[in-house]
Amino acid sequence: MPANAAVVASRRTPFRPVPVDAVRMRDGFWKVKMDLNHERGLPVLLNHLEEHGVVDNFRLVSGRKKVERRGPCFTDSDLFKWMEGAAWDLATYDEPERRTVLESIIDDVVAAQQPDGYLNTLFHGELADQRFRNLDHEHELYCAGHMIQAAIAHYRVTGSDKFLGSAIRYADYLTKEFGPGKREKADGHPEIEMALIELYRTTGAKKYLDLAGFFLSYFGLPGSTDICAMNARGEMPWMRHAVRALYLSCAGVDYFAETGDAIYGESVRNLWRDLTSAKMYVTGGVGSRYQWESIGDPYELPNERAYAETCAAVANAMFNYRLAQTLGEADFADEMERALYNGVISGVGLDGKSYFYVNPLACFREHQRQEWYGTTCCPTNMVRLLASLPGYVYSVGEREVRVNLYANSRVDYQTTDGTAFSLDVVTDYPWDGNVDVTIELSQPAELTLSFRIPWWCRSAAAAVNGQEIQAEPKPRSYLQIKRLWNSGDRVHLNLGMPVVLVEADSRVREDMCSVAVQRGPLVYCAESVDNPGASIRDLELASGEFQVERSELLGGICVLRGKGRTPVSSADRGPLYRIRGSVDLPMREVDVMLIPYYAWANRGPSHMTVWLPFRK
Amino acid sequence: MPANAAVVASRRTPFRPVPVDAVRMRDGFWKVKMDLNHERGLPVLLNHLEEHGVVDNFRLVSGRKKVERRGPCFTDSDLFKWMEGAAWDLATYDEPERRTVLESIIDDVVAAQQPDGYLNTLFHGELADQRFRNLDHEHELYCAGHMIQAAIAHYRVTGSDKFLGSAIRYADYLTKEFGPGKREKADGHPEIEMALIELYRTTGAKKYLDLAGFFLSYFGLPGSTDICAMNARGEMPWMRHAVRALYLSCAGVDYFAETGDAIYGESVRNLWRDLTSAKMYVTGGVGSRYQWESIGDPYELPNERAYAETCAAVANAMFNYRLAQTLGEADFADEMERALYNGVISGVGLDGKSYFYVNPLACFREHQRQEWYGTTCCPTNMVRLLASLPGYVYSVGEREVRVNLYANSRVDYQTTDGTAFSLDVVTDYPWDGNVDVTIELSQPAELTLSFRIPWWCRSAAAAVNGQEIQAEPKPRSYLQIKRLWNSGDRVHLNLGMPVVLVEADSRVREDMCSVAVQRGPLVYCAESVDNPGASIRDLELASGEFQVERSELLGGICVLRGKGRTPVSSADRGPLYRIRGSVDLPMREVDVMLIPYYAWANRGPSHMTVWLPFRK
Repeated sequence: MPANAAVVASRRTPFRPVPVDAVRMRDGFWKVKMDLNHERGLPVLLNHLEEHGVVDNFRLVSGRKKVERRGPCFTDSDLFKWMEGAAWDLATYDEPERRTVLESIIDDVVAAQQPDGYLNTLFHGELADQRFRNLDHEHELYCAGHMIQAAIAHYRVTGSDKFLGSAIRYADYLTKEFGPGKREKADGHPEIEMALIELYRTTGAKKYLDLAGFFLSYFGLPGSTDICAMNARGEMPWMRHAVRALYLSCAGVDYFAETGDAIYGESVRNLWRDLTSAKMYVTGGVGSRYQWESIGDPYELPNERAYAETCAAVANAMFNYRLAQTLGEADFADEMERALYNGVISGVGLDGKSYFYVNPLACFREHQRQEWYGTTCCPTNMVRLLASLPGYVYSVGEREVRVNLYANSRVDYQTTDGTAFSLDVVTDYPWDGNVDVTIELSQPAELTLSFRIPWWCRSAAAAVNGQEIQAEPKPRSYLQIKRLWNSGDRVHLNLGMPVVLVEADSRVREDMCSVAVQRGPLVYCAESVDNPGASIRDLELASGEFQVERSELLGGICVLRGKGRTPVSSADRGPLYRIRGSVDLPMREVDVMLIPYYAWANRGPSHMTVWLPFRK
Repeated sequence: MPANAAVVASRRTPFRPVPVDAVRMRDGFWKVKMDLNHERGLPVLLNHLEEHGVVDNFRLVSGRKKVERRGPCFTDSDLFKWMEGAAWDLATYDEPERRTVLESIIDDVVAAQQPDGYLNTLFHGELADQRFRNLDHEHELYCAGHMIQAAIAHYRVTGSDKFLGSAIRYADYLTKEFGPGKREKADGHPEIEMALIELYRTTGAKKYLDLAGFFLSYFGLPGSTDICAMNARGEMPWMRHAVRALYLSCAGVDYFAETGDAIYGESVRNLWRDLTSAKMYVTGGVGSRYQWESIGDPYELPNERAYAETCAAVANAMFNYRLAQTLGEADFADEMERALYNGVISGVGLDGKSYFYVNPLACFREHQRQEWYGTTCCPTNMVRLLASLPGYVYSVGEREVRVNLYANSRVDYQTTDGTAFSLDVVTDYPWDGNVDVTIELSQPAELTLSFRIPWWCRSAAAAVNGQEIQAEPKPRSYLQIKRLWNSGDRVHLNLGMPVVLVEADSRVREDMCSVAVQRGPLVYCAESVDNPGASIRDLELASGEFQVERSELLGGICVLRGKGRTPVSSADRGPLYRIRGSVDLPMREVDVMLIPYYAWANRGPSHMTVWLPFRK
């Protein structure tokens, strides 16, 4: 049984993930989110999946229930993503009732599988002979991929191969149907590729890796440098679609990790550069166009009209998580952190059960979370991401332990050479930059403990057993402390966390002369409920100085207080276009209060902006 | 026979249009465009209409030709718009061969009309009994409207009622089919409303006006204040569609003009305010979203991703033309001028036969004109607009002549009280602000000559017979000179035309800290072919000073020369998001050359921007 890592368990990469159940999250930022996900997110979403007939679709196919099929063509995937989340959730919260519920759903799903291994509730009854009729649009292999991933999660957490066996039968069927000389076409929505590679990692059967490689080549991923343009055959304009492009990129990293094929390594690096240099929001959100839910042209990053689908931010975190294991630079974990703390969790309400599909960076009209969407991919992606989050915190290498994220937690695992270790990490991150780490070992061992120094951190200090270390920690790198560690050795890390003003490359015209305020990994925003004295659309910063104030608000946050400017009157503002300087708009000073971006839209309808004009 | 005005010939409005054939355009800005339209635009487009089967569709229905119907459902309208243009063109260029061609096409069209008056080539053969099956999407009444408008133009220019009679039969059929107690639904694409009101003006039959009113009420136009939201029944999200919203607004003005119904007057004023205060480009272009070709939210005006369909700019000019007659403020003619000189004529190449469908305000990739589009509404709208342009220059009132546009031209007409006059206008506008006007009268008459002082003109002076007049001309108003005029009296008008820097309301975030450079009515842009020393995306202005230089370039323009700044190196620009001030980008000074926006994209693939950062 391979390590039950959340996603990647490669044999070739310099770093490897740590299994979800090797990490215990303790009270703190992420544990609160995970608890809510466990207590509300998963059960409430299952109710909706039942109410909307998504589970019944399987009972219909197995003959257990007489119903009409409901939901969009891809709705099987919604249940599979929920199942994946429910499986990872067991790793943290091993409750028998929860396990029973999941097993019962697995039973319903497996019962619907056809004798040849095929499983999709759309192609049943009158459509039974229409399999693969419209791969471009009907997400058939996308659903298959999510089924495989759910089954792998279930296997890794429980050790049971009931669901995994079903997934293997389906995958075997697919390897007979697809590939060179068979059906030479990929699914319009990538996802199967990641799943097949994970199944290869789980079973060792190379045919799954090969089929994934066939699909990746179909899309022209090897050699691609433009994340919007991956489709060598030009048949799929929707490959600008943010989630599809990023899922494909994830699979590209996985394929490189398993094959070492250099062109894949170069390609995913180029795609990452293309994404992060011109096509990503400061929140880690991706996808600036409503049309096709797609990635725009370089620097096309409108704030109010940001689409930034929650799934795309999740996919961005997944992409960077994979790159962090495979290529190892701190930049990747930096970007993973950016997405997780901002664009990902903005997608779920503080109630733990309502979700955003679209995550604008400015809002001047109503935008509310919902428990359910007709296309409910984002809620189900959120529950599986949060349930698997412990797997994102650490990674291991040869005599090395890497701390990618700072979370109040404990990890018990081993480095790739087999040195067992425990790390006990105490921190109030992201509200405070102090991190106390204690290592436990069965015997003294020479190891490197590597701590990521984030890009926004301009002053970091570290001490081992009270002794400050000499090496000056540099942002965008890992601070590597290599020594003979004794059990009980302590590291204290202080990550300077001042409020910083972030600016965008001037080619992002929407953000010109504006700043995003950030503290630690958190991007802040001005929400109308906290700033009653000004119209959010008209609010400007008057100063770059902020006071940080710990608050019980919104589940416990740091709020930032500063000074802003706003027009004295909202009345006559002059014509839309006028001779420069001809309209004099008297301004007055106002107090400005900012909250973390992820926490907005939890107090009724409101206006909000991340970017604030700052003309100094 | 009523006055053969281009569009509006109301009996109730304070001002009335001047017939197209009462105005002779002479050598100058617009005459060049009209000559090209006559020599190339109309004949080349007719060739395309023939080649693409659009005319043959009618021959198919009449049995004159055995062919398959070709083109989209609304393609009849393309021919009708060409016919309207060909008819107005006869008013300026009365060539027998051209008249013969038009008459022959009319003959083909009329032969396809059904005995009950119905005429649409889509609903023929197998679909003959499917009329009005999908009014939301099939543009059936939209086509009918364009047929009626073409017939009215033909009637007004030639006096022949052959085509008009056919249009009347069709309109009579529609009044039997649609209205309260009959089919209670409007067409998804407004246009029939304007046409029916014009037919009412032409025939005096009130049933056409009433049916137009029924459709307008269906859309909820009376009482509407949001140009994106006109659809009381909520069935048509696509009413954000820029062209549809503006065609409907045009009809609203026409309906108010004919009925005096105050709620329509108030509504169209509110719609105009909504449009011009937050939803229009500095070029007069309208429609910021590719999705649905629609009008965005307030201040959502991206430049590179501007959709700004040529048809929408034409419709904006038509809307303001109607408002100028009906409500009379100079603002309306100002906006008409803005659209005509910028967003409208950017839609046609200097070759007179290639067109833009989409008119971005910045371009950093390839964007080329085409002679033909699958949906070829823009080219056909352009030919009819240019052919009818003489009708937009002047208007008349009670003892008043209004000069709305400044064009080298002569007008022979009468005021609404019947005073015959001629005005001889000599000017090199828009390159020069001097305008020399000579009035001719059969006997001395007390009249007001009104000259629009544009919004951008901060210093204007006027003299009558060499004697400077005292009244200080104010921008955004008409300078009204009331006196007893003798034949041969001369007015000299000097409209100060410095280069001005235009800024946008700061709520248009894309334009913040940037300026659009304008001289006279012309918005300028930087095109890569003229600025080889800089990447257009990176070009900033270093100074607000420009030299004006008359040039033979691009058919004869004034170019502007100034100073700009651009990064020394295009290499490492730092991360997309960074701590403010942490990336130092060395800049160097470069010469900047600007050309009128309408003239860009005539010299091969190029990059372009209207808005230029200016940080002073």
